[in-house]
Amino acid sequence: MNEQPQRTEGDPAARVIVAGATGFAGALAAQLVWDHPMLELVAITGRSEVGTRLEKLYPRYRVDLELQPLDIELLEGADAAIVAYPHAASAPVVAEMRGLGMQVVDLSADFRLRDAELYEKWYGPHGEPALLADAVYGLPELHREAIRSAELVANPGCYPTAALLALAPLAEAGLIADVVIDAKQGISGAGRGGGDENHFVNLAENAFAYKVDAHRHTPEITEGLKALTPGTSSASLPGGPGSAPGLPYEVTFVPHLIPLDQGELVDCFVTPTREIEQNELATLYEQRYVDQPFVRLTEEPPGARDVRDTNECHVHAVRNGSRIVAIAAIDNLWKGASSQAIQNLNLMLGLDETEGLR
Amino acid sequence: MNEQPQRTEGDPAARVIVAGATGFAGALAAQLVWDHPMLELVAITGRSEVGTRLEKLYPRYRVDLELQPLDIELLEGADAAIVAYPHAASAPVVAEMRGLGMQVVDLSADFRLRDAELYEKWYGPHGEPALLADAVYGLPELHREAIRSAELVANPGCYPTAALLALAPLAEAGLIADVVIDAKQGISGAGRGGGDENHFVNLAENAFAYKVDAHRHTPEITEGLKALTPGTSSASLPGGPGSAPGLPYEVTFVPHLIPLDQGELVDCFVTPTREIEQNELATLYEQRYVDQPFVRLTEEPPGARDVRDTNECHVHAVRNGSRIVAIAAIDNLWKGASSQAIQNLNLMLGLDETEGLR
Amino acid sequence: MNEQPQRTEGDPAARVIVAGATGFAGALAAQLVWDHPMLELVAITGRSEVGTRLEKLYPRYRVDLELQPLDIELLEGADAAIVAYPHAASAPVVAEMRGLGMQVVDLSADFRLRDAELYEKWYGPHGEPALLADAVYGLPELHREAIRSAELVANPGCYPTAALLALAPLAEAGLIADVVIDAKQGISGAGRGGGDENHFVNLAENAFAYKVDAHRHTPEITEGLKALTPGTSSASLPGGPGSAPGLPYEVTFVPHLIPLDQGELVDCFVTPTREIEQNELATLYEQRYVDQPFVRLTEEPPGARDVRDTNECHVHAVRNGSRIVAIAAIDNLWKGASSQAIQNLNLMLGLDETEGLR
Amino acid sequence: MNEQPQRTEGDPAARVIVAGATGFAGALAAQLVWDHPMLELVAITGRSEVGTRLEKLYPRYRVDLELQPLDIELLEGADAAIVAYPHAASAPVVAEMRGLGMQVVDLSADFRLRDAELYEKWYGPHGEPALLADAVYGLPELHREAIRSAELVANPGCYPTAALLALAPLAEAGLIADVVIDAKQGISGAGRGGGDENHFVNLAENAFAYKVDAHRHTPEITEGLKALTPGTSSASLPGGPGSAPGLPYEVTFVPHLIPLDQGELVDCFVTPTREIEQNELATLYEQRYVDQPFVRLTEEPPGARDVRDTNECHVHAVRNGSRIVAIAAIDNLWKGASSQAIQNLNLMLGLDETEGLR
Repeated sequence: MNEQPQRTEGDPAARVIVAGATGFAGALAAQLVWDHPMLELVAITGRSEVGTRLEKLYPRYRVDLELQPLDIELLEGADAAIVAYPHAASAPVVAEMRGLGMQVVDLSADFRLRDAELYEKWYGPHGEPALLADAVYGLPELHREAIRSAELVANPGCYPTAALLALAPLAEAGLIADVVIDAKQGISGAGRGGGDENHFVNLAENAFAYKVDAHRHTPEITEGLKALTPGTSSASLPGGPGSAPGLPYEVTFVPHLIPLDQGELVDCFVTPTREIEQNELATLYEQRYVDQPFVRLTEEPPGARDVRDTNECHVHAVRNGSRIVAIAAIDNLWKGASSQAIQNLNLMLGLDETEGLR
Repeated sequence: MNEQPQRTEGDPAARVIVAGATGFAGALAAQLVWDHPMLELVAITGRSEVGTRLEKLYPRYRVDLELQPLDIELLEGADAAIVAYPHAASAPVVAEMRGLGMQVVDLSADFRLRDAELYEKWYGPHGEPALLADAVYGLPELHREAIRSAELVANPGCYPTAALLALAPLAEAGLIADVVIDAKQGISGAGRGGGDENHFVNLAENAFAYKVDAHRHTPEITEGLKALTPGTSSASLPGGPGSAPGLPYEVTFVPHLIPLDQGELVDCFVTPTREIEQNELATLYEQRYVDQPFVRLTEEPPGARDVRDTNECHVHAVRNGSRIVAIAAIDNLWKGASSQAIQNLNLMLGLDETEGLR
Repeated sequence: MNEQPQRTEGDPAARVIVAGATGFAGALAAQLVWDHPMLELVAITGRSEVGTRLEKLYPRYRVDLELQPLDIELLEGADAAIVAYPHAASAPVVAEMRGLGMQVVDLSADFRLRDAELYEKWYGPHGEPALLADAVYGLPELHREAIRSAELVANPGCYPTAALLALAPLAEAGLIADVVIDAKQGISGAGRGGGDENHFVNLAENAFAYKVDAHRHTPEITEGLKALTPGTSSASLPGGPGSAPGLPYEVTFVPHLIPLDQGELVDCFVTPTREIEQNELATLYEQRYVDQPFVRLTEEPPGARDVRDTNECHVHAVRNGSRIVAIAAIDNLWKGASSQAIQNLNLMLGLDETEGLR
Repeated sequence: MNEQPQRTEGDPAARVIVAGATGFAGALAAQLVWDHPMLELVAITGRSEVGTRLEKLYPRYRVDLELQPLDIELLEGADAAIVAYPHAASAPVVAEMRGLGMQVVDLSADFRLRDAELYEKWYGPHGEPALLADAVYGLPELHREAIRSAELVANPGCYPTAALLALAPLAEAGLIADVVIDAKQGISGAGRGGGDENHFVNLAENAFAYKVDAHRHTPEITEGLKALTPGTSSASLPGGPGSAPGLPYEVTFVPHLIPLDQGELVDCFVTPTREIEQNELATLYEQRYVDQPFVRLTEEPPGARDVRDTNECHVHAVRNGSRIVAIAAIDNLWKGASSQAIQNLNLMLGLDETEGLR
């Protein structure tokens, strides 16, 4: 029996727009807001497919709304927004919403890096650099208090979400001397775009790495680790993809696509700064995550399937020789995108963090 | 047009037995010998399923023979054998065959490690330690000449095959200061055993690591690297899973299962002993593999699907920051087991290495 | 925003046991009761795995209970049960529960056929024939009122669920002169048993029919159609697998396994008793299903994926030449088993039929 | 041991062009000609991707040629062609080749139907109706002698190939009173086109019917059955999708996509014109297919995987009540397209039918 919170009818905690609901992450965010007991989904918008019902694009979804163009009237009828626009397209929309006083969770990369120069290096010129200082990096298990008081939250990338949750206990304890991150993700992570690269026949019975020399989630992971590491401070990155001034180690990150729909597994191979026994390692992780409703430490190495369609992150850390192997499994569309946006919005609105996510 | 070698009818290069043809690797080896233009498959044996036709177990296969028990009469009618027995069960069978003067390719781990103590640490007591000195490690691209004159070849494990081919150019140049190996394999690698762990429903839409603290292919990889490294010599391993006396670095190896049938992708993250530019790296790999008929250097990161049902290994090496990422893709049942056994047998018999494998 | 019913804490509509929670259907039923706003899951039982937590067997599930042996004390603390035992094992357990006055939904075949002789022909001797008269066939869209007043509900098989929902409008209108049913199901339908037949490697990239000459869901479908057909009455079946006295046509049914996890697609090819235009056909289905919360008539042929993890049945009926093709898609574990059990229990308890299923 | 035919070097049976080698079927045909011991692949052409090597598009393939535009010089250097152009685009190319005296196997639908009116109804106006009379329908097991003397062979569609092989023994014996055909195919059957409908995420864990009211393979199947049925003659079709003058029964055909790469399973449900026992049924099929090198009658229902990457068709026919269920499994890209084209070309050139296909 799952006791539901009681609430007065017709009195949502916020009226929410999901902007950019045609893509995988936006559509799921729309469904999650629609099903949420305390939020009212007032509109879903798309840059294409205007007038189409969401279930026409996604027969699995049950949102009784048509896609609309984003305009000022829509915005004026809403209190908050989840924005699922592509990188660069997102910043001006977010700026407009913030100008109206709306609370915003942005799923793009536009507000994840604090430094406009660093952003430009990986994504191109930033359209709204003035807003960067206000944005809070939305990984609740690591930055919960800042999110509670934020008006603009940058929802993390899926790889950084898993990598940072796997590594946070070590980073905070100053235990990382070196780290290699090998990530595997299902095909939904490649987005809704058609084309050869997403054709079933090219992906079934296949597995391959991509962006092997440098992936733009690397600086996001690096900045995230710096924020957790005692005695470091954020600054721009002059060096290779994974080196950062102030971070006393380099991060090597390589992603892969594997033939499943949703799901992500991230293996972190850490050379520790000092020897650490398995018992101490276990205790470190237990203490860090004991009160986190969506993190579970698993006895066995976690499976992508175990967290499918959930906001959970399963973490497992063991020694292998002198190294530490820390593995995290998430659903790339849920904890790696849309359900984490709901978790952030819950915190921003003063709701229980787990509302609508159980 | 694929011009076939001409040969006089009724005059095979060898009469071959495949012992242990009920498992995935043995059955495929039987099919490959059956289809081979220069070999005669005289018998297939099984410890179970005696009297069953192979196609009853594997409807895809087209071998017109029944499984028989292994006995001395069978052996006396054969010149060579491919043995696909489980570890420990293989050694006595191989010993009996060698006693009859047969040439043997053994697919188990029983003769892969030169050191009986090291073997015992990972697999239990060795039944035929006296034979260890005669066995040659059967990775043709690395040990071709030794294989040509061998009577007993230990066919490598699938993970070591891919890992050593990815790393050999670096190891031989003394360029490895440290290495992390993250391997992903299809489900056929888990063997034919039934049970929950191989149930479709537990594997579809899943991906997970296993043996995270230590896998027994680690010492095989470590020994293989030592054999390639200038100035090192083989010796037993007293330390952690990936440390070896004489090898100036530790090897960290973690395998994963991903939801495909056949296929294997092995990522090696190398900290080089000195800085190396991409051009030099490319040249190093090209020179090493220019004449290897089954190794292809790929422009893009290789896909498991690209090598499916082939004896090929696709290799791709690039820099990522200060590290080198070297990736190899093989079919775990082919180059990782059965077709590599044919490649070895071809060499032992003085045939063209590619015979029956194109 | 999904407004939840309010209810006083500590006052569930029923205390429920799920018996046989180790299998796929029982485990999912346990999860659904656990999450249900009006039901209290008081125990889960298993004939094996006693003392194991459900999430150990099914890492995706979140039920905070251990498996227990089924005993009288457990039963006395419960008001209702969902029984997910194998055929034949179920009947005595159900009888014991009924003796204690419990309301029971049985997922086995034991109470689906009204006739003990017919049951015996397909399943062997029936252990509790006296209970047959009390059992109601639990397909709510077809027998809702009878279910509301039932104490024992026989939850339909997955194939009959989809086939009968696809065919009901035609059967009730006396429009079926002949029917061929070709069903396709995901691998979870084959059950949790290990063994070759459920090995990933035998199922990936495969598709095949089974029980082609006769499958025991055929009499269940035949009896179900008789109950819907004007002027027929139920009786035992002396003839072939799909012929029944009183039913003026034969039913041909052949099931297949296809390589997905959950999901089922059932195509029914009907020769109509008279010509019928597409408009009339559409109207017939719309009128039949207009008020059914879990049946959706789709514009396009339905996909198994569209109903995954839901209690929905998507139905699509069109003419093809002189025939009618009626297709239904369900999730075999949900609407085909566990969620339909919840739907039935809701009705038996006087709750809203959709409670806990949205 | 697989004894290879001996042949003098430099003396192929034919110099072959594969026109339209960018699609799935054309690329595989190119690979099969490349590997063929008696054919020389002189060129591969594409309407796009000119200058690209085939392995760039299909990393699995090993054809050492670049795609070229189709021009008259190319044609003059060749004796035969396999044409894998889309419907309607194929006819003029075939006409040009025939004008030069080349032997042609056409994989499109352009020459499968003998009647230009019938063709126009399903595909639009026919560009080269004068050639229709010369074309032979290339299903070797049914029309071998005609193929041997043909200059233009229309390679059958994949669904008609499997359906006609499953039904031929019954059709030739005049035993079909009625037939329903339910076909399931892997995603490669949907072609190489990108777009939502072939996106991995829309196909994994899915299964659905398409063209439920009428599919253009229906007239091809109907015409094929007429050619086999005693006392019928070919004529245009005025009625529904599956009715044809001269054929004493209607054909109902519905195709499905299921989540595998290559493979096709076709179930035919036949109402026989008279009662037939299982023994007689088995004998009928055995006698019909006893000497067909690529047809195998299976004891168990055939699996799509059993014929993967082969030119085989596995057939299984059993009674179910008063009906007959005949099931055929093929690889849609091999026997359903490219390898059947090789089989046809072998026959046209007077080679052994199995050359290059074992």
